[in-house]
Amino acid sequence: MTMKRKKISVIGAGFTGATTAFLLAQKELGDIVLVDIPQAENPTKGKALDMLEASPVQGFDANIIGTSDYVDTKNSDVVVITAGIARKPGMSRDDLVQTNQKVMKSVTKEVVKYSPDCYIIVLTNPVDAMTYTVFKESGFPKNRVIGQSGVLDTARFRTFVAQELNLSVKDVTGFVLGGHGDDMVPLIRYSYAGGIPLETLIPKNRLEQIVERTRKGGGEIVNLLGNGSAYYAPAASLVEMVEAIVKDQRRVLPSIAYLEGEYGYDGIYLGVPTIIGAGGIEKVIEVQLTEDEKAALDKSAQSVRNVMNVLV
Amino acid sequence: MTMKRKKISVIGAGFTGATTAFLLAQKELGDIVLVDIPQAENPTKGKALDMLEASPVQGFDANIIGTSDYVDTKNSDVVVITAGIARKPGMSRDDLVQTNQKVMKSVTKEVVKYSPDCYIIVLTNPVDAMTYTVFKESGFPKNRVIGQSGVLDTARFRTFVAQELNLSVKDVTGFVLGGHGDDMVPLIRYSYAGGIPLETLIPKNRLEQIVERTRKGGGEIVNLLGNGSAYYAPAASLVEMVEAIVKDQRRVLPSIAYLEGEYGYDGIYLGVPTIIGAGGIEKVIEVQLTEDEKAALDKSAQSVRNVMNVLV
Amino acid sequence: MTMKRKKISVIGAGFTGATTAFLLAQKELGDIVLVDIPQAENPTKGKALDMLEASPVQGFDANIIGTSDYVDTKNSDVVVITAGIARKPGMSRDDLVQTNQKVMKSVTKEVVKYSPDCYIIVLTNPVDAMTYTVFKESGFPKNRVIGQSGVLDTARFRTFVAQELNLSVKDVTGFVLGGHGDDMVPLIRYSYAGGIPLETLIPKNRLEQIVERTRKGGGEIVNLLGNGSAYYAPAASLVEMVEAIVKDQRRVLPSIAYLEGEYGYDGIYLGVPTIIGAGGIEKVIEVQLTEDEKAALDKSAQSVRNVMNVLV
Amino acid sequence: MTMKRKKISVIGAGFTGATTAFLLAQKELGDIVLVDIPQAENPTKGKALDMLEASPVQGFDANIIGTSDYVDTKNSDVVVITAGIARKPGMSRDDLVQTNQKVMKSVTKEVVKYSPDCYIIVLTNPVDAMTYTVFKESGFPKNRVIGQSGVLDTARFRTFVAQELNLSVKDVTGFVLGGHGDDMVPLIRYSYAGGIPLETLIPKNRLEQIVERTRKGGGEIVNLLGNGSAYYAPAASLVEMVEAIVKDQRRVLPSIAYLEGEYGYDGIYLGVPTIIGAGGIEKVIEVQLTEDEKAALDKSAQSVRNVMNVLV
Repeated sequence: MTMKRKKISVIGAGFTGATTAFLLAQKELGDIVLVDIPQAENPTKGKALDMLEASPVQGFDANIIGTSDYVDTKNSDVVVITAGIARKPGMSRDDLVQTNQKVMKSVTKEVVKYSPDCYIIVLTNPVDAMTYTVFKESGFPKNRVIGQSGVLDTARFRTFVAQELNLSVKDVTGFVLGGHGDDMVPLIRYSYAGGIPLETLIPKNRLEQIVERTRKGGGEIVNLLGNGSAYYAPAASLVEMVEAIVKDQRRVLPSIAYLEGEYGYDGIYLGVPTIIGAGGIEKVIEVQLTEDEKAALDKSAQSVRNVMNVLV
Repeated sequence: MTMKRKKISVIGAGFTGATTAFLLAQKELGDIVLVDIPQAENPTKGKALDMLEASPVQGFDANIIGTSDYVDTKNSDVVVITAGIARKPGMSRDDLVQTNQKVMKSVTKEVVKYSPDCYIIVLTNPVDAMTYTVFKESGFPKNRVIGQSGVLDTARFRTFVAQELNLSVKDVTGFVLGGHGDDMVPLIRYSYAGGIPLETLIPKNRLEQIVERTRKGGGEIVNLLGNGSAYYAPAASLVEMVEAIVKDQRRVLPSIAYLEGEYGYDGIYLGVPTIIGAGGIEKVIEVQLTEDEKAALDKSAQSVRNVMNVLV
Repeated sequence: MTMKRKKISVIGAGFTGATTAFLLAQKELGDIVLVDIPQAENPTKGKALDMLEASPVQGFDANIIGTSDYVDTKNSDVVVITAGIARKPGMSRDDLVQTNQKVMKSVTKEVVKYSPDCYIIVLTNPVDAMTYTVFKESGFPKNRVIGQSGVLDTARFRTFVAQELNLSVKDVTGFVLGGHGDDMVPLIRYSYAGGIPLETLIPKNRLEQIVERTRKGGGEIVNLLGNGSAYYAPAASLVEMVEAIVKDQRRVLPSIAYLEGEYGYDGIYLGVPTIIGAGGIEKVIEVQLTEDEKAALDKSAQSVRNVMNVLV
Repeated sequence: MTMKRKKISVIGAGFTGATTAFLLAQKELGDIVLVDIPQAENPTKGKALDMLEASPVQGFDANIIGTSDYVDTKNSDVVVITAGIARKPGMSRDDLVQTNQKVMKSVTKEVVKYSPDCYIIVLTNPVDAMTYTVFKESGFPKNRVIGQSGVLDTARFRTFVAQELNLSVKDVTGFVLGGHGDDMVPLIRYSYAGGIPLETLIPKNRLEQIVERTRKGGGEIVNLLGNGSAYYAPAASLVEMVEAIVKDQRRVLPSIAYLEGEYGYDGIYLGVPTIIGAGGIEKVIEVQLTEDEKAALDKSAQSVRNVMNVLV
């Protein structure tokens, strides 16, 4: 009958990691440990302290610490991994994959050492392959290793549709399968405003533009910022997944799940609709696909496999 | 009987300005316009879009735009000014004051042009002199030009005390007068945990250490970050002030108010307890001071005057 | 540039009215005036005071008063009407209609006298005819007189579906047209869990049972309570509509709207999907209906007309 | 590493019990079991279902069930006891005490049988003696059996002061010791608005009126309602105590705690300032009392003993 607060560790104290930590604390989902490498220890501590100093005004009770020592993550209930590098000009995709793979392996080793029973949510790109890497390195059952991409993709889609129709974001939904970006497979027929299929509310070519904008949603922010990438919406997306687990909400959320036969795939992490609750990914939901949708998903799965082949 | 949303503009899209915009939107206090200089227009748009894309997940309805054109701020209800530069190594205090004074003047001119009836909250340092500058430049009545420092100072103090006593931040209060930092005049006898005076809960020398840490609270974060300054707690503090105005809460908050005789000062902006509501600063609350406290406040007021003398 | 709080009056201080007042105050949507007849003035004052005394603990700033004098409702922004009697054993439907019609007329006269620019939301049964009565008596434009039934009906439907599938209520949606109860026209094909059509998730006959339970949802509570009817879910439904107006959210909500040609009906109030924002009902959304659905809606409209014919 | 939701049972499904259940669910503090006697089973189920049907609209995920079978409370984390009768005209105090004592004993037996590790919060009057009864009957350690009175008393006091000064309830605090009503010992010198002692803000005789109104705060509501007693503010008070435990907030809250030497009393339950967290009452805070205050507290303690003497 323990009333101890949940403990949530966020690995990587960059903008996304820090924002994630803050949003988790705001919701009083648990005490927060923000972790980065030893060279970034002081800034990490600084961010954590600054957040904590916001707590009396924002009215939340949550401890927030910054650290570079994984011992501080001991007995975490949930661990969010945002660590890793972004692709730099001139860097090949393979270099990116292998560098972040190394990061995932070393992070996972530490995470598992101190929190052998935790749930892990991965954001690092390329997220399908990185989630797979964490899964393998951790030795955890598949329900406890989850990748994030669909919550963010649908959040962007919903934003664009809400703007298009001048409606509350609360009443617009979206639905995606497959990978991020060019490999995203939007299921427009499962996307609605107030329950009404978008196909009947927005002309086809305009909807296609919105889908295309969603596909390139990360790039749009990168281009605008000039130096860096999105972090508010990614952080919010991670927080929604953590909340679903910590509060056992049984949310229907798109997540990157390990497939063993679902949708006809085996042994890969791929974006699919899932039920997220106290058991992590409690179920992969299989929806009927049209031939076109299945073909697009196949292509997306193949992209994931191509990246997985680069893993060492 | 208009139900139109409030409009809140945040001038300066750095970390504090951006975080302020996000926290305001989260609370659905109004639609947000985030403004920066033309050279930063794209990043400003990028941040605003990223925040907006978090709205479906965080569940708030608020438009957020980034811009460098003040016409977009037209008819703002509240304007928060975070623009200005931070002191750089080798820069004299006078240079800082005069540079930010120039920024305040040009920002205020634009703000007033488009929102002649708005309330203005100033964060830019040195905040007393900068609030004075905005007051003079705007020609606004004193109740509509307010500086922030005490909410942040007490937030830090409350955080440290809550940690010291291992208590909820919700039950710890603090009370400060005067300027930021070294000029801060803490009224420990008006600071409590669960209503119990801190003086009876924490040994005197330990309390002095906490006060001293509060005084240097901004510097502590600057030193940890290495490159930049605090923004979570400052943003939260600004948001609390905006909320008090927009929701007409009649909060008792420490703010930098224009004094005309209160506490024996005239013609300066100084940190004092105030009532903040629909009318902005609706009242300056005068509390009895001990001789020591009055002396400290005199010193603080003198510091403000010294900075004001540098204004051109 | 007024920051004055919104003012919301709730007419009828029974369980639904009182609960509505409390939930409105909790959300700080405005100051609340709870109104009942002179004979119930003291209990009304008692409930209002009790609610107000909860505010320091629940952390909301809203004034709440109880009264029997409509002068206290002066300049309300929104007025919610829950007044009226429930059908008693032995009472004919016509008696119910005519009694509540009288109540609506006298309430509306007072409301309009003191708040000629307000928005009115009606809950009193039979709600279609009562909303029509208020509309006529008020002389208000149709966008400012709205009936509630669909938010409640879909809330019940969503609850039953969430239980059936063991999912978060956040991810289940429903869609209804037409009147309450037996005249409700559910559009199952526009109802989803996580965006997936319910028809593919729940067997047809089980779905029909859920629809049937929804139709009789009010009666189920009445039978259980033994003495009285539902008030938590009706109050929450009213609050959602008020919030959409006060915050100009442009929500897509089912509401009882005055039709002038939409769906082929003219001059009646009927349950349809609408956009609710600062302008009240800003739009009636017309969705394509199947022949069966149109037939069911015709039947529902005829029921409404039958009740209207009883109006004197 | 269980993520199972907390389970909170509320015994007594009258207005206070039901409202408590709803407010607990709203905050997603856990799944709720509302319990009443077999004769009231259906209404209890009806209330629980009505609340649950509000959840999709209010946006909370919490199961709520009504029952008369304690087996449904199995493994509750927290149990709130609101059961018992109110004093009726012509009933002697001793009759009230002995009747409610019987209720407490039978309720406690059932609670303990199914939830041997739970925390119990008691509201039933006379609350000091009833909390003592539950403590003895349960055999629980003293930190796990807590009575409520001070949170409510201070909530009322804060409301009246906020009205008097026209300030946000967020910035007004109160402090009480001892029993409810006439035996309440207010510590005005520990009560503030914005941290400023009320004694310096409100004239002495006016403050005395406010204290007197607070003492009779329950009766004021009873008189207004005519038939029944307060439930919004009592429910909110209970919820604040539950939240402090469930979220391990280490709040400083006045509660009815078992004293073993503190304040010079032994073997009685009395209202004192406490720290409430994951361990229930984690500490009784002893503040210095003036002679007058100590005398008043003695009188209050004697009243409690007088009631305890009536226990059989």
